[in-house]
Amino acid sequence: MGEESSLIKESTSMNPNMEEEVEERDPESNPLNEPLLKRNRTLSGNPLALVGAKVSYIESLDYEINENDLFKQDWRKRSRAQVFQYIFCKWSLAFLVGLLTGVTATLINLAIENIAGYKLLAVVSFIQKESYLTGFLYFTGVNFLLTFVASVLCVCFAPTAAGPGIPEIKAYLNGVDTPNMYGATVLFVKIIGSIGAVSAGLDLGKEGPLVHIGSCFASLLGQGGPDNYRIKWRWLRYFNNDRDRRDLITIGSSSGVCAAFRAPVGGVLFALEEVATWWRSALLWRTFFSTAVVVVVLRATIELCHEGKCGLFGEGGLIMFDVSDVTVRYNVMDIIPVVIIGILGGLLGSLYNHLLHKVLRLYNLINQKGKMYKLLLSLSVALFTSVCQYGLPFLAKCTPCDPSLPEPVCPTNGRSGNFKQFNCPNGHYNDLATLLLTTNDDAVRNIFSTNTPLEYQPSSIIIFFALYCILGLITFGIAVPSGLFLPIILMGSGYGRLLGIIMGPHTNIDHGLFAVLGAASLMAGSMRMTVSLCVIFLELTNNLLLLPITMIVLVIAKTVGDSFNPSIYEIILHLKGLPFMDANPDPWMRNLTVGELVDVKTAVVSLRGVEKVANIVTALKNTTHNGFPVIDGGVVASTGVANEATELHGIILRAHLIQVLKKKWFLKERRRTEDWEVREKFTWVELAEREGNIEDVAVTKEEMEMFVDLHPLTNTTPFTVLESMSVAKAMVLFRQVGLRHMLVVPKYQASGVSPVIGILTRQDLLAHNILTVFPHLAKSKKKQ
Amino acid sequence: MGEESSLIKESTSMNPNMEEEVEERDPESNPLNEPLLKRNRTLSGNPLALVGAKVSYIESLDYEINENDLFKQDWRKRSRAQVFQYIFCKWSLAFLVGLLTGVTATLINLAIENIAGYKLLAVVSFIQKESYLTGFLYFTGVNFLLTFVASVLCVCFAPTAAGPGIPEIKAYLNGVDTPNMYGATVLFVKIIGSIGAVSAGLDLGKEGPLVHIGSCFASLLGQGGPDNYRIKWRWLRYFNNDRDRRDLITIGSSSGVCAAFRAPVGGVLFALEEVATWWRSALLWRTFFSTAVVVVVLRATIELCHEGKCGLFGEGGLIMFDVSDVTVRYNVMDIIPVVIIGILGGLLGSLYNHLLHKVLRLYNLINQKGKMYKLLLSLSVALFTSVCQYGLPFLAKCTPCDPSLPEPVCPTNGRSGNFKQFNCPNGHYNDLATLLLTTNDDAVRNIFSTNTPLEYQPSSIIIFFALYCILGLITFGIAVPSGLFLPIILMGSGYGRLLGIIMGPHTNIDHGLFAVLGAASLMAGSMRMTVSLCVIFLELTNNLLLLPITMIVLVIAKTVGDSFNPSIYEIILHLKGLPFMDANPDPWMRNLTVGELVDVKTAVVSLRGVEKVANIVTALKNTTHNGFPVIDGGVVASTGVANEATELHGIILRAHLIQVLKKKWFLKERRRTEDWEVREKFTWVELAEREGNIEDVAVTKEEMEMFVDLHPLTNTTPFTVLESMSVAKAMVLFRQVGLRHMLVVPKYQASGVSPVIGILTRQDLLAHNILTVFPHLAKSKKKQ
Repeated sequence: MGEESSLIKESTSMNPNMEEEVEERDPESNPLNEPLLKRNRTLSGNPLALVGAKVSYIESLDYEINENDLFKQDWRKRSRAQVFQYIFCKWSLAFLVGLLTGVTATLINLAIENIAGYKLLAVVSFIQKESYLTGFLYFTGVNFLLTFVASVLCVCFAPTAAGPGIPEIKAYLNGVDTPNMYGATVLFVKIIGSIGAVSAGLDLGKEGPLVHIGSCFASLLGQGGPDNYRIKWRWLRYFNNDRDRRDLITIGSSSGVCAAFRAPVGGVLFALEEVATWWRSALLWRTFFSTAVVVVVLRATIELCHEGKCGLFGEGGLIMFDVSDVTVRYNVMDIIPVVIIGILGGLLGSLYNHLLHKVLRLYNLINQKGKMYKLLLSLSVALFTSVCQYGLPFLAKCTPCDPSLPEPVCPTNGRSGNFKQFNCPNGHYNDLATLLLTTNDDAVRNIFSTNTPLEYQPSSIIIFFALYCILGLITFGIAVPSGLFLPIILMGSGYGRLLGIIMGPHTNIDHGLFAVLGAASLMAGSMRMTVSLCVIFLELTNNLLLLPITMIVLVIAKTVGDSFNPSIYEIILHLKGLPFMDANPDPWMRNLTVGELVDVKTAVVSLRGVEKVANIVTALKNTTHNGFPVIDGGVVASTGVANEATELHGIILRAHLIQVLKKKWFLKERRRTEDWEVREKFTWVELAEREGNIEDVAVTKEEMEMFVDLHPLTNTTPFTVLESMSVAKAMVLFRQVGLRHMLVVPKYQASGVSPVIGILTRQDLLAHNILTVFPHLAKSKKKQ
Repeated sequence: MGEESSLIKESTSMNPNMEEEVEERDPESNPLNEPLLKRNRTLSGNPLALVGAKVSYIESLDYEINENDLFKQDWRKRSRAQVFQYIFCKWSLAFLVGLLTGVTATLINLAIENIAGYKLLAVVSFIQKESYLTGFLYFTGVNFLLTFVASVLCVCFAPTAAGPGIPEIKAYLNGVDTPNMYGATVLFVKIIGSIGAVSAGLDLGKEGPLVHIGSCFASLLGQGGPDNYRIKWRWLRYFNNDRDRRDLITIGSSSGVCAAFRAPVGGVLFALEEVATWWRSALLWRTFFSTAVVVVVLRATIELCHEGKCGLFGEGGLIMFDVSDVTVRYNVMDIIPVVIIGILGGLLGSLYNHLLHKVLRLYNLINQKGKMYKLLLSLSVALFTSVCQYGLPFLAKCTPCDPSLPEPVCPTNGRSGNFKQFNCPNGHYNDLATLLLTTNDDAVRNIFSTNTPLEYQPSSIIIFFALYCILGLITFGIAVPSGLFLPIILMGSGYGRLLGIIMGPHTNIDHGLFAVLGAASLMAGSMRMTVSLCVIFLELTNNLLLLPITMIVLVIAKTVGDSFNPSIYEIILHLKGLPFMDANPDPWMRNLTVGELVDVKTAVVSLRGVEKVANIVTALKNTTHNGFPVIDGGVVASTGVANEATELHGIILRAHLIQVLKKKWFLKERRRTEDWEVREKFTWVELAEREGNIEDVAVTKEEMEMFVDLHPLTNTTPFTVLESMSVAKAMVLFRQVGLRHMLVVPKYQASGVSPVIGILTRQDLLAHNILTVFPHLAKSKKKQ
C-alpha cells in the first residue's frame, strides 16, 4: 500500500485554492487576547478522493447527535404520536427498500436473460447454418453495442455508477461523505448500465451493482426523492439526517445482496461483516425484515415466470446452484483436498488482489486522459471478450454425448443448458462452448454441474480458467457498472474443477463440489469474508452437509490471503483515497498522544458565545473547517473564582453558522437570547440541511459590526479527549462513537490556558497521514 | 420492571459495612488545599447482585487498555516472535475451546441417551407385563434419584451452575464481573448436573448449560487451568487480562450453541445477536473457526456411533429435526396462518415471560430460606413431572395403527420412535405416551414429524400443551442446570401443531411444519432473537424453502412480544440485579448532564503524582472505589503560567495501589522515579492480577511517612467527558468503548478548579439508579 499518496498528490494541483491558506484571526475572537498555539499546518491530509473518475473534495458525515438547544427542545416536544410516526416510517421505508430492490432485481434479471438469450439463440442459428463469420459479426456487434450503451451512460452521465460501488458504500457507512453516489441519475445509469454490460457477456456480475442499487433506493426514499424533486412530506423530515440515512443505506445494501443471491441471511451478514462500520441490534432486525421482503418478492416473480410469461426468463436468472439433490459423501481423508483448495484459494486470491491493484492504477492513468479514452478502453475490452468467447471454442475437440442422456439434454442448442452442440456434429457437444458461449450465470451453473465427471476435458477447463483470469483482471476497471463476485466465482470454479479432475481418483468428492469449493476459496482469498460468504454459499447451494467443508476452506483461504495483502475492497478504498478508518489502531499509535498531533496542526479557530458577525465571516472565509469551538469567558459558579476563567461551551457547525448569516439573525448589542427568539427563526428541520456556501452570503458593513448569540445553536455535548490521550484510544473513540470532530482539551487546569487546544478530524487520525508527518514512526513500525 | 429494587434492598442489609462510609481525606492529597466539591452520596446503587443463589458484591471488568508506562514499555519491547506467539495461542485456544466443547457435548448426549434410554426400556418392559404400578415406581424413583444428584451438586458445590447461565454470560460480556461463574467446580457440576436433570425427564434442555460449559472451558483454558492449579506457562500470560478473556468467552458461548443445535452459523450469530456486547470482525472469524471445529467433532462422533459403539446413542441425541425430505408447498394464501402463528407466538411468549417473572420471584423467596428448601423444591418438581408424564397417557384413547405402516414403525416399544404402544393392545398406539413418556429430544422429534396429519388427537395435543406450559413455568427456577430453549420449543410445537389441526382444511402446510413454526414463534416471542433463531431453525430443519415463512413468523412474533415486555434474558438480568448496560440510552437522558450526576455523588478521592503512603492507605481503607485520579501540580509548559496550575495525570487502579503497598515500593523523599526502578519491581504480568485486599497489607508507622511515585503505574489515557456532556452520550461512550471508570472534567478553565470533578462508573449510568435519585425524570418519562 502507500501508492495512493502519489495519486492524491497529483490531484491536489487541481485544487490549489484549498490549501495553504494562512488564517487571519480577529484578535477579538480570542477572549484571552493572546495568540493561540502557533503551529504549522502539515498534518491534515488533503481531504480529496477519487469518486467515480473525478477527484472530489471529501467531507465527513455527522453521525453524532448534535445536541443543541433546538434539538433538545424538539426532542422534548415530540409527542407519543410523533415517535410512533417515526417508528412506522422506519419500518415502511425498510419495507419499500426491500420491495423496490426486489422488483428491480427481477426486472434486471428479466432484461438480461431475454437480451442475452435472444442474442445467443440468433448466434446458434447462424452456427447451425455453418455461417460462422456472420455469427461472429452478429455476436460481436451486439456485444459491442450493449457495452457502448452501458459505457456512454456511465462516462457521460454518472461516472460514480462505474464499478461495484461497494467500496464507496463501505466508506459512506464509515462516515465518509462520498459525493454523487446516491442520486437518481446514478440509480438509473446503474440499472441500465448493468443490464447492458451483463448482457454483453462481459466478465462482470450484476451482484455488486445490485448492492449499490439497493443503497440508492434507500437513500432516495429516505430523502423523499431525487434532489430536485423532493417530496417535502412532514413525516419524512425525521429522516433528513446522516444517522437515519446510514441505517437506511445499510438496509439497502443488504437487500441488494439478498436480491443478487437470493440469500436473505447472507445479505444481512454481508452488510454486517463487510459493509457496515456501526451496527445495532435494532438494525439487525430491520435489515432482516427487508431481506425477507426481497425474498418474498423474488419468490412471487419466479412463480409467475414459471407459467412462461417472462420470455426466456425461466428458472434461470437468479443464480441458484441447487446441489441439494447431490448426496454429499466425504470422509476424514477428504480433508486433504479441502485443505489444498483452501491454500490455493488464498494464494490465488491474494495474487489476484495484487495484480488487480496494478491494473487499476494503470487504468486510472488512462481514464484520467478523458472521456474518449474511457469509452475506448471499455469497448476494446468488450471486443476482446467477444472474440475470445466466440473464437476459443473452435479449439476444443467435439465430445460424443453419453448415450444414456436423452436428446434434448445432450446436445443442447437453446440458450441455457449443459452440453452445447456449437460447431459439433449431431450427437456431439463442444465442452468449451458450453462454458464460454453462454451467459455468465449459465456458465457458473454448467461448471458447477454435479454427477458429470467426464463432461469437461482438462484442456478446456485450462483454457476457461486462463481466459477468465485475464478477463477478470482487465474488465473490472472499465467504465461500466461491474460486480466482482461473478468474475471471482468463474475463476474459482475453473481452478476448483481442474483440481477435481486432477484429484479425481483419490477422493470421492464430486467435481461439481470441487468447483463450488474453488469458487468459495477464491472469494475468501480475495474478499476476505468468512461468515457471510459461508451463508451465501449455503443458501446458494441449498445443501447443509457442505457446511463443514465450506467453513474449513473459507477459514484457510482467508488466513493465507491475509498474510499477503489486504482485501480487495480495502485496496480499492486506498486506491480511491477515501479516508476509511480502520477498526484496529496500529501498535505505534499507543506511543503518540493527540497533543503531539495537534502540535503540528493548524491553530484552533474558535468563536465566542456571543460573537461579532465580522469574526464569524472571517472565520468562515479563511478556513475550510466545518466545526468551530465556542468559548465563553465568565465566572465559575461553584468556586466563585474571578472572571479570568474560560468555559468551553461546545462546538458549532459551519452549516449552522451559514444559516445564521443567511437568515441575518443579528443582534444590535452583545447579549444572550431567549429560547423563543431562536425557535421563531430556526426549525431543526432547516438545521439538518448541509447545503450553503459562505460565498453566497452577503453581509453589509453595518451588519458586520452586529452580534450573534451562538449559544442556542451550539452542540453543547461534544466528545473531548485530554491532550495526553493516546492516538490509539482516540481513534477507537472516534470510530466507535462515529464522530466528525473531536476536541482536544488541555490536561492542565489553570488560568490563561485555552479550554481547547485542537480539533481532530478523520484525516488527522488516519495512519497514513500521521506517518507522513512523523516519519520516524513509520521506521519503528517497519522494525517491528 | 422495577421490582428488582426490592430484592436488592433486602439484600443490602447483609453488607452494612459497605455503605455510608464517610470519606476522610488528608488535606495534603489535595494540592489546592481546599475541599473538593462536597456532595452527598446517594446515586451509586449498591453494586450487589444475585449470582447463583447468593447475593454477591459485583465489580466491573477492565476492558479498557490500561496505558501506563509499564504497559507501553512492554508493548514496545514485544518482538515479532512474541506477537506471533500471541496470535498462535489465540487460534490454538479457539481450536481447543471448540474441541473440548464438541467432545463434552457428545459425552453429555451419550450419557443422557443411555441413562434415559435404559430407564425407558425398563419402564416399557414393566408396562408390557402390565405391572403398571411397578413401572410407575421405577420411573419415578429413577427420576427422583437423578434429580437428587443434580440438585445436591448444584446446591452444595456450585450454586452458580443452576439455570442456563446465559444471562450471567451476557452480563460478563457487557463488563460485569459475575463471580464464581467460570471455575472448574462450576464446569464439573454443570456437566454432571445437566446429565442428571435431562435424564430425569425434567422439562429443561441441555442447550443453555452447553453455552455455559463452552464459556467455562474458554475461561479455564485462557487462564491455564482452575484457580488453584494454574499452569504458569509463559505463553498463556498474555491472556491474563479481561479483554482476551472476553473474546475467549464469546468464542466459548458460540461453540456451546453450535454444539447444542449442531448449528455452526447459528452459534456465531447467537453470540453476536444475544450474548456479546462488543464485537470485532476478527472475533467473528475466530468464533466461526471454533464452531467449525465443533461441527467436525460432532460429525466424527456421529459417524462413529453409526457403527453401534455408543449404546443407545444412535441417530438421536443431537437435536436434528430433519425435514429436508418434506416438499414444502405453500402459496400466497398460506400467509394468513403464518401471520396468525406469529401473532400468537408473540402474545404467548410475552405472557410466558410475564408469568415466569412472577414464578422466579416466588422461587427466590423459597430459595433464600436455605439449602434444604432448594433441594425440596427441585425434588417436588421432579415428582410432579414424573407423575404427570407417567399418569396422563392413561387418559388418552388408544388409536389403531395405519395399516400401511409396517410393524416396527407402529407401534414402537423401544426407546425412540413415533407411535408408542404403551398400555394399548397390539396394533394400536397411545399418542400421548408418544409425546410424554420419552426423552425431550424425542418428544420434539415426534411432534415435528411430518406427513402424519392423523397421528395425534386434538385432546392429546391440548393435554401436552397444557402440561408443558405448567412444567415450563415451574421447572426453570429450580436448582439444577437448565436451559430455556427446549421447554419453549416443546410448548411452541404443541400450540403450533394444535393450530395445524384446527387450520388443517384451509391450508396445505404440513402439521409438522406448523409445529416447527409454532416453536420458532414462541422462541422469538420470548427470547426476542431473529436472525440467529432463523439460522438455527434453518440448520435444524435443513430446509431452505422454509426460510421466508420462518422469517415472517419471527419478525411478527418479536414485534408483538416487544410491545408487552422485554426479553426473558433481560428479565432474568434485572431480577438478578446485574448492572447490565443497555445499548440505547433513554430519551430523558439527553436532558441530564453528567455534571448533575456527579453533583449528587460522593466527592472525588484523588491522589497526587508522588503521594504519601499514609494517604494511599487512608484512601484505600475508607473507600470502596476501584480507581483514583492522579493529579499533579506544576507549571504549564506551553504558556509558562505559574505553578498554581494542576494537571490531571491519569487514573490508578486499586489493585495496583495494593501491589505497591504489598511490595513496599516506597521512597524516602518526594521524587520522581526512573523507568528501570519500576521495571525492576513490577512486571505487567503481575499488574494484570486483580487479587489483593487492603486488609491483608501491613504498613509500619515509619513507612506511612514515606512516599510512592504513582506516575509509572498510572493509566495516563483515561476517557474523559466534560461536565456539560449529556448522560445519553456519556452512556454511549461508556458502553461502546467498554469503560470501567469515566472521569468528568470541568468545562471551565481556571486556576483553583480541580481538573476532575467526578468519576462515573457503570452503576452511575444505569437508568434505574438515576431515576431513584431524580424521580421527576421518571415522571416525565411516563408522560411521554
